[in-house]
Amino acid sequence: MSYPKTLTTLIQTLKKLPGVGQKTAERFAFQMLSWQEKDLINLSTAVSDVKQNLTYCSDCGCLIETGPCNYCTSTKRDPKTLCIVSSAKDVFAIEEMRLFNGIFHVMHGLLSPMDGRTVTDLDLNKLKARIQSLGTQEVIIALDSTVEGDATALFLKKELEPLGLFLSRLALGLPMGSSLDFVDEGTLSRAFAGRHSF
Amino acid sequence: MSYPKTLTTLIQTLKKLPGVGQKTAERFAFQMLSWQEKDLINLSTAVSDVKQNLTYCSDCGCLIETGPCNYCTSTKRDPKTLCIVSSAKDVFAIEEMRLFNGIFHVMHGLLSPMDGRTVTDLDLNKLKARIQSLGTQEVIIALDSTVEGDATALFLKKELEPLGLFLSRLALGLPMGSSLDFVDEGTLSRAFAGRHSF
Repeated sequence: MSYPKTLTTLIQTLKKLPGVGQKTAERFAFQMLSWQEKDLINLSTAVSDVKQNLTYCSDCGCLIETGPCNYCTSTKRDPKTLCIVSSAKDVFAIEEMRLFNGIFHVMHGLLSPMDGRTVTDLDLNKLKARIQSLGTQEVIIALDSTVEGDATALFLKKELEPLGLFLSRLALGLPMGSSLDFVDEGTLSRAFAGRHSF
Repeated sequence: MSYPKTLTTLIQTLKKLPGVGQKTAERFAFQMLSWQEKDLINLSTAVSDVKQNLTYCSDCGCLIETGPCNYCTSTKRDPKTLCIVSSAKDVFAIEEMRLFNGIFHVMHGLLSPMDGRTVTDLDLNKLKARIQSLGTQEVIIALDSTVEGDATALFLKKELEPLGLFLSRLALGLPMGSSLDFVDEGTLSRAFAGRHSF
């Protein structure tokens, strides 16, 4: 005898979440059965609202609630510095630092031929047009330090270099609080190559 | 700058799921943003339906969809054997084996003074009345092999012994495919104590 249909439907739907397999989905579903009605309604509403109330800014690609984009329209931000990130989530990580006060440009993905994401998906013309219209002087490439991130960064470097901007990429090195014992070879060699006078 | 309100609400609600903290909830929420509208609606509906379409049988406590309980009303099941489990989820694990063909009794919890679950929460009178009316001859105590499971099993043994039934509890020993190296001391000593002629 298998689970009742309603439960099976819920389990199948929960399995779409990243890292959630059959067992975890079952655990979530049975936990939900013990929730109060109002908590279930809250989750149900939050899930259905997420796409209706949130959108990506057509200029910078940041995640915004309906209305003008806080990042693009703010007068306190410096349009001369443009930070390129791969996803809208990265914007929040950078904002959390409270160090950067420029404008963002979300690529919504990296070059990844294996997943069918090629150069045309990066929409470079839009990026170049923004750099032109904003009068950007510095471009900070804040992409992941993965194979895809490296490839995309190199491609962007090649494409943006002729524009005569100051181009930079985030430093690669030891993460805070790490010990050399546990750091992988790649990170260690990058940290060596990027050593600075002290 | 923090997440938009709609996203914060979704993240807070997802954090109610077992084992889901801030980071995982953020990951789920951002993944949902990339889902198609219909997938979000499916999840939203599945969540809100779960409590409306599912209920616990008032007799055995098994999870059922509206209508009569398949376990209690089936003529193919032997009412002489009663299997006591702690949660409705356990019923599905036992059914999966296809070895047991008796009736279930779901306790909906174990004795756990730390969580405020005492003897009165077990509703022993209902269990005894069921045993009486079903004419049960064997009671299988299929509870977890945890401190709470052991305590509840001992309590049930003391309470049900005077009824003159055949009482049994699931065997404790090595799990399938395990090696002695990796089995904990408690399991090993239980497996030793429960050794059988071979």
